[in-house]
Amino acid sequence: MSANVGFERWVVLLAGGIGSRFWPASTPARPKQFLPLASDRPLIVETYERACALASASNVLIVAGEHLSPHLQRDLPGLQPDQLLLEPQAKGTAPALAWAASEILARAQNPDRTVMISLHSDHVIRPLNRFLATLELAIRGAGDLNRLLTVGIRPSRPETGYGYIEAGAELRPGIFEVSRFVEKPDRATAEGYVAAGFVWNSGMFLWRPQVLLSELAARTPELADELASLQAGDTARFFGAVPTLTIDHGLMERSPNIAVVRADFEWDDVGAWAALLRVRDLDDHGNLLVDAAHAVDCRDCLLWAEDGPVVAFGLEDIVVVRASGVTFVSTRERAVDLKNLLAQLPDDLRSGGS
Amino acid sequence: MSANVGFERWVVLLAGGIGSRFWPASTPARPKQFLPLASDRPLIVETYERACALASASNVLIVAGEHLSPHLQRDLPGLQPDQLLLEPQAKGTAPALAWAASEILARAQNPDRTVMISLHSDHVIRPLNRFLATLELAIRGAGDLNRLLTVGIRPSRPETGYGYIEAGAELRPGIFEVSRFVEKPDRATAEGYVAAGFVWNSGMFLWRPQVLLSELAARTPELADELASLQAGDTARFFGAVPTLTIDHGLMERSPNIAVVRADFEWDDVGAWAALLRVRDLDDHGNLLVDAAHAVDCRDCLLWAEDGPVVAFGLEDIVVVRASGVTFVSTRERAVDLKNLLAQLPDDLRSGGS
Repeated sequence: MSANVGFERWVVLLAGGIGSRFWPASTPARPKQFLPLASDRPLIVETYERACALASASNVLIVAGEHLSPHLQRDLPGLQPDQLLLEPQAKGTAPALAWAASEILARAQNPDRTVMISLHSDHVIRPLNRFLATLELAIRGAGDLNRLLTVGIRPSRPETGYGYIEAGAELRPGIFEVSRFVEKPDRATAEGYVAAGFVWNSGMFLWRPQVLLSELAARTPELADELASLQAGDTARFFGAVPTLTIDHGLMERSPNIAVVRADFEWDDVGAWAALLRVRDLDDHGNLLVDAAHAVDCRDCLLWAEDGPVVAFGLEDIVVVRASGVTFVSTRERAVDLKNLLAQLPDDLRSGGS
Repeated sequence: MSANVGFERWVVLLAGGIGSRFWPASTPARPKQFLPLASDRPLIVETYERACALASASNVLIVAGEHLSPHLQRDLPGLQPDQLLLEPQAKGTAPALAWAASEILARAQNPDRTVMISLHSDHVIRPLNRFLATLELAIRGAGDLNRLLTVGIRPSRPETGYGYIEAGAELRPGIFEVSRFVEKPDRATAEGYVAAGFVWNSGMFLWRPQVLLSELAARTPELADELASLQAGDTARFFGAVPTLTIDHGLMERSPNIAVVRADFEWDDVGAWAALLRVRDLDDHGNLLVDAAHAVDCRDCLLWAEDGPVVAFGLEDIVVVRASGVTFVSTRERAVDLKNLLAQLPDDLRSGGS
């Protein structure tokens, strides 16, 4: 029986993003994962399809804020209500994953032979076959090794927007000890990391749910005392009691029981408008034209014309986004710095002009 | 009686522009003269007020296409229906001015001591007192000299977008013979013209209506035979019979009976979006922000947010216009070349997207 030779698989999709990086197309009411950034379909739909290639559809859980429930039900019509874990409060990835692990243990047919895979809902991954090959390797590793596995991406450039992982000894083919996690570097440091073979920290994790919960109990005092509320099914109490905490800071950077799986696929967290010019097919002049966008004599421009026509003429390296009632214009370089811009805008524009 | 010591004054405003230079804010249905380009009031309103400072309000006539009649009545509520000369067909400035001269002769109390002043409806002129001082001089000259007077502007820069006039001998203080008209020059030629004291051809004219009509009869065979239709009041026949012709090519460049009045005021034909950055008050960073425009870290940008908010971030020398349902983005330099752009756009965008 295949369920006995392998591991029971559960996939958790984290869909809690607040959506300021793709303003004005993304807003708190429509975070990035609901935008058609990688293709003409929302990122969440593509992520869900990848999850269903890893596990049976009913074993895919989505953790999100309550306000996103209508969007999820619209974009993922096959989703059953019990697959949606709606957070009473947004407290970051550590509490979210603790809750998901606890749910999986309660629902799994074979809790002792279950692997939990945590994926972000708003990343671009391709091609599917290489993603699945890497994840098969990682699922076996997570099942066998009693470690917290993270997926590391071979860098294609000295990116300053990602964290890096220095890998140590090879534990088994493709899976390594973690020497250290390092924060987003400056350009020169990033070049050094790439030359030294560091990998990007993708934020994809695999572990047995018991391993996660026992690691949290041992190394994450912010949550440890409250894990009992989860076991008792009192989710509201758990989220009410715990602080906001990411799994990276709260556990991964503290635990010695980590390993990194070296990925053999392309990955991008599409963290800013300019990232679309990396992940999308462009016209002959390097432009990306979405919806009612027209470019004449333009090069390397991104024109996102979601709620009305945009006509660009004689531009280079310019980003124009027309969405949510607002027209936003910037350069490829400065459009990365949206947080800074949004802090200087009136409230009504931040949440979209219409 | 003041009417006997001076000349009876009639002002003709030419309002026939087709409105492609300020696309997408200007469209065939709303040409440039109806846009608030020089201030927050339409150019035609400011022009009409200048005209009323030169002549009594009932002596101001407007020549325009029939489709503009509702706009004119809305923007100029004091206008009487008989002050509107609606062209049966657009045939350029020579037929339009012949018709206006003929109307003025028919309406004037003292046709022999009448001066006609022809102004474009879409130029920026300031300050008013220096405009009026120059025009007083020109009215006396047009009344006395039996010549066609044109108003020449002292150049403030080697502009390549204007025609120039080389002045000859001084006929009386401030009024000169015309040695020649020259077409729009290249940059080096323009610098030579400015150094040599040439003036810009403003397209403002003054003459006695009889002088215009007899000059047309003598030097403009394209119209000469049809002037009788005007005298007979058969405007439709006149416009049906004559070719399209400008007063510059059809008469001014042919006649020896020309003089140029040297103007002592600032003038701009605001021929393109970038011109607004010359004629409008700018913010501390050289930006012009109109309506719902927001600029953060921008320099020398024009943001025209007429039908919805525009947010610009980290831009320099960029023009963004949101009007008529379309968002147009270009550089200050390329936005001058709208004719080229519009030829490459689908029809529905040319006439506005909404």
